[in-house]
Amino acid sequence: MKRHLVVIGGTAAGMSAAARARRGDPSLPITVFERSGHITYGSCGLPYYIGDEIKDIHDLIVYKPEYMKKERNIDVNILHEVTEINIQEKYVDVKDLTTGKTFKQLYSHLMIATGAVPVIPPIPGADNKNVFTLRNIEDGLRIKDFLSSKKVKRAAVLGAGFIGLELAEALRNLGIDVIVFEMLSQILPQLDGEFVAIIEEELRKNQVRLYKNTRVTEFKTSGEDSVRILTENGEIFDADIVIVSVGVRPNTVLAKNAGIKTGLKGGIVVDNYMRTSASDIWAAGDCTETHHFVTKKPIYVPLGTTANKQGKIAGGNMLGGKAAFPGVLGTQVTKIFDLYVAATGLNEAGAQDVGIETVSAKIKQSDKASYYPGSKPIHVKIILDKKSGRIMGAQMVGSEGVGKRIDVFVTAITAGMTVYEFNELDLAYAPPVAPVYDPILIAASAGIKAMRQNEIRN
Amino acid sequence: MKRHLVVIGGTAAGMSAAARARRGDPSLPITVFERSGHITYGSCGLPYYIGDEIKDIHDLIVYKPEYMKKERNIDVNILHEVTEINIQEKYVDVKDLTTGKTFKQLYSHLMIATGAVPVIPPIPGADNKNVFTLRNIEDGLRIKDFLSSKKVKRAAVLGAGFIGLELAEALRNLGIDVIVFEMLSQILPQLDGEFVAIIEEELRKNQVRLYKNTRVTEFKTSGEDSVRILTENGEIFDADIVIVSVGVRPNTVLAKNAGIKTGLKGGIVVDNYMRTSASDIWAAGDCTETHHFVTKKPIYVPLGTTANKQGKIAGGNMLGGKAAFPGVLGTQVTKIFDLYVAATGLNEAGAQDVGIETVSAKIKQSDKASYYPGSKPIHVKIILDKKSGRIMGAQMVGSEGVGKRIDVFVTAITAGMTVYEFNELDLAYAPPVAPVYDPILIAASAGIKAMRQNEIRN
Repeated sequence: MKRHLVVIGGTAAGMSAAARARRGDPSLPITVFERSGHITYGSCGLPYYIGDEIKDIHDLIVYKPEYMKKERNIDVNILHEVTEINIQEKYVDVKDLTTGKTFKQLYSHLMIATGAVPVIPPIPGADNKNVFTLRNIEDGLRIKDFLSSKKVKRAAVLGAGFIGLELAEALRNLGIDVIVFEMLSQILPQLDGEFVAIIEEELRKNQVRLYKNTRVTEFKTSGEDSVRILTENGEIFDADIVIVSVGVRPNTVLAKNAGIKTGLKGGIVVDNYMRTSASDIWAAGDCTETHHFVTKKPIYVPLGTTANKQGKIAGGNMLGGKAAFPGVLGTQVTKIFDLYVAATGLNEAGAQDVGIETVSAKIKQSDKASYYPGSKPIHVKIILDKKSGRIMGAQMVGSEGVGKRIDVFVTAITAGMTVYEFNELDLAYAPPVAPVYDPILIAASAGIKAMRQNEIRN
Repeated sequence: MKRHLVVIGGTAAGMSAAARARRGDPSLPITVFERSGHITYGSCGLPYYIGDEIKDIHDLIVYKPEYMKKERNIDVNILHEVTEINIQEKYVDVKDLTTGKTFKQLYSHLMIATGAVPVIPPIPGADNKNVFTLRNIEDGLRIKDFLSSKKVKRAAVLGAGFIGLELAEALRNLGIDVIVFEMLSQILPQLDGEFVAIIEEELRKNQVRLYKNTRVTEFKTSGEDSVRILTENGEIFDADIVIVSVGVRPNTVLAKNAGIKTGLKGGIVVDNYMRTSASDIWAAGDCTETHHFVTKKPIYVPLGTTANKQGKIAGGNMLGGKAAFPGVLGTQVTKIFDLYVAATGLNEAGAQDVGIETVSAKIKQSDKASYYPGSKPIHVKIILDKKSGRIMGAQMVGSEGVGKRIDVFVTAITAGMTVYEFNELDLAYAPPVAPVYDPILIAASAGIKAMRQNEIRN
């Protein structure tokens, strides 16, 4: 069979795989089919485009098809939808969305990188013209166009996860009134709860109205340009725009129809080498189920960093490489107005789910020498394995300094460090950068104290 | 013998030891003798006091003697100089500098934490009234007083190490012309050289005149209020103030006179448990020689972070604890105008010195998503063991983001990670915090590439 790598999806995972395969084999034909009009865009940047912090949406587009052809000799076909995978005869059916023509493309290696699609809850009226989701460039342009053509004064965001809150900030930056609805009793379920009050205070300070424990039951057209939001609690709200941001699910219709094994939330099951259940088919990124680095159990964590890494690994392995994906820690970070929020590893609930008993500690400490002008507080929570003192997870809220401090925990968890080893780290100190005992070391000390108290109790 | 812990020196190491011993034993009598008028001050903050960023020098004083007495039951005697240690009969001779009276103090446990003193090169005229060093609160007050009472327009700094450059920035903040003299061919010898040009450019941009390869040979009184600086190269400069910042040396006259073993640069030799060669005598901090975490060889690295940690360990061990100090990575960080500079572990020269063959790589990358407003470049150099790919050291120059990114390398080096393991780290990503591939991961990728090229060559 003629060697030909076909990639379904010009996502971060797809393009990473294609680029990696090209580096490994300069002559392998590589063809990418992408249904939308764009490849590998910085989708995490979309809220900042909505909020006018990024003026030109083209800044989010990392590579253009022409560039991939010229510089990497990769054929990228945008506006081409793969409609079927035939795993026996090793071809895909493709539809050119511009001309409507269809054709078959044989493959020797197939990469599925179809990404994820927004979850739309089954709410009557969710197809209202004022109700949007934000996942890709086209969504971004549509929302932006709506915001600039209508007199939008009131916005509602469904979902108080990382992206929902980023959107709330973006809309406030435009001077729009913002209500956020969250079905659960807590925003940002990645966090354990202690720090949530600090984030809620930041939202309040910035006039974001938050409704927790609030399930939206219906959207109704109201007046000429607005939408009426009804909740389970019987409340009624009017908004000019609604953005639904309640998460994404793997886009795996193609894979399922082809009989490829799927798992958690419908994500494609892959082994550590990014191989699917079908021979010569790899998958990576937001369309796959992955596993947690600590628990080794399957999870679904659609993140750009993971997609890039998995794509690279798939691209190398399909040419004979033997790289294994070690799993994810689910590291997340964001900025919510002037507050940075970060988490990695297991939270207490997550540890409990897999039967790990934990000890935890939390502290508040200045991010710079306390006497240095402009120093701000950082809150750190550290979660430890009760038996060994191994670090299982960490959460932080505070100044910009949390952004990269979380990575110290990422490294420690990956290395299997105990809190005792962590406490001895020779971390950087200078008054404009950190106090002599960095907040993360103070957290480690508090963790050791908690371990000791726990021993005394038992 | 009556149990009594005597601490010589109210330094960070001395006070950490005292506080730790108190936590371990609520009834042990603890007495601290400190020659100067202050204990545990943030000496690293002194340049920022000179530069008016910190207005009140009292902000640098962490604890007062009264506080230590009341809250910790530790007797702190400032303006008390220990003049001799008798290791056979276990007492110290003490002179009360206020009254001139002397007395003996018996000890069962003795902690030497006498810190370091500035190196003053043997330059004729170094005792000129316009020539200062900056080590303690009194020095800070003297310089500040001089700056505000005289019309200081021209300053000279001897030494282009971290503190010398912080001082240059501080003096420029006051609108003073600044010349920096460096005897060596390179500023900041902790760095390997590649990034030095970037820092020199930052100095130039801020009108700091730098003279490298320049040995000052004499200070002469010139006019009423200024000093003339002569150099080996025959150049002549006039300045209103000179600050000598060419490093410090361990303050160990007492220990040497008592027959306690000293080593590198005269630092007190201690084992991993902070025990000196004399029984029942511990030492920690800037007065001791320590060892490098990677090479295990003796080094002298006087840093506040180390002093605090070693002091704690000594204070615990003297009560029967068994904590071992793991050694230092020599992590350093500072801000030089708008540039942050950080280094940890071995540089290439340091690795060569101990016979470790290295492979290294350096990269430049945006600190945030490139499309995010205000993103700035970070330069990263990574130094790897040629055989195993283990990370030996890292250096960074760039935006504020280098400050805590260096700690990720600290953690990785401490854990013995290879560059291949490091490359898989699930680091935090969000457009306002980092690009999807953080600069330190880009550095790891470049390091892996360098390892591969090196294999091909051999």
